[in-house]
Amino acid sequence: MSKGNVTKSRIVETALRAASVDGLEGITLGRVAADVGMSKSGLFAHFDSKETLQVDILNAAAEKFVEVVVAPALKAPRGEPRLRALFDHWLEWEQHKSLPGGCIFMHAAAELDDRPGSARDALVNHQRRWLETLAKAVRLTIDAGHFRADVDPGLFAFQLYGIVLSYYHSARLFKDADAKSRAVAAFDSIVSSASRATIG
Amino acid sequence: MSKGNVTKSRIVETALRAASVDGLEGITLGRVAADVGMSKSGLFAHFDSKETLQVDILNAAAEKFVEVVVAPALKAPRGEPRLRALFDHWLEWEQHKSLPGGCIFMHAAAELDDRPGSARDALVNHQRRWLETLAKAVRLTIDAGHFRADVDPGLFAFQLYGIVLSYYHSARLFKDADAKSRAVAAFDSIVSSASRATIG
Repeated sequence: MSKGNVTKSRIVETALRAASVDGLEGITLGRVAADVGMSKSGLFAHFDSKETLQVDILNAAAEKFVEVVVAPALKAPRGEPRLRALFDHWLEWEQHKSLPGGCIFMHAAAELDDRPGSARDALVNHQRRWLETLAKAVRLTIDAGHFRADVDPGLFAFQLYGIVLSYYHSARLFKDADAKSRAVAAFDSIVSSASRATIG
Repeated sequence: MSKGNVTKSRIVETALRAASVDGLEGITLGRVAADVGMSKSGLFAHFDSKETLQVDILNAAAEKFVEVVVAPALKAPRGEPRLRALFDHWLEWEQHKSLPGGCIFMHAAAELDDRPGSARDALVNHQRRWLETLAKAVRLTIDAGHFRADVDPGLFAFQLYGIVLSYYHSARLFKDADAKSRAVAAFDSIVSSASRATIG
């Protein structure tokens, strides 16, 4: 990486940590500059608006997500083991060291759902790709014979998404001691429904 | 209501609409005063800080939630019909006319999870009570013989919460045309699992 790129990625890392706590709207270029230890005009040389920084934060977070959730899970055998690995790493994601305030995507979803623009587009793009990755893992689980052929991959991905959102709320907002055991039980339940032979 | 209370509730209604879009942190007393058509000092006579206003916004939203989600569902017969009514009204909640930017609780959860204080306490209190209401409805469904006795009411409430969060994301962020049909299919699936006689 060139020196300029190193600086830029240091700015984005710092801004990602701040946005994880205060949201993408809560960050200010002035505070990010101060946290990085550079002047506001120095930061403006890299990001001419808050929105371009927000897009880069989301892109950096998506790269990190692939690195800590998707890539390790691809080492598990196709089918149910890989699906479970994706789920397990996803549960851990919101505690990643780069995210002191929890999942940036969940935070951004609440902020950006009504705000058209490039940051919202980036968020929707990343989240859609993730749902497609999950649906694809479900299709491979059907192909492997672990799930019934009539399981709906899109619906299964929707259900998984819900379990993890409920887990994030339960763990971070309610600080429920049984957040994780419930998330795992909910996962086991949809896996068991999808594996079960239909009766009658 | 006294004249003072009428004014206060008009301020809170206006602030709730704004917070639904911009979040509880995104509102400013100055803008709320302008929206209501009063001076900032006039507004300060009712709310001495943003946090007291945030608490009142959450309390007002919780009252509205009981009115549009819980109360109508209590008219349905105990057991599965009532549980389904709670779920149906809950899906409609984020489109309520007082919430132009969607569910205030979801927005507040992302903002307040890392911010100790009276607003966070109010949010956690309301959301816990709602999860307890759901768990109680599940217990009544077991008592009515519609669900198996070994169904875990807390886990079922956790799953329901997840389905609705996933629906809110799907409908508002992704604008998925099949958000609702997936939410209903996911609900039917956990109801069917909870009703099914255990095999073996």
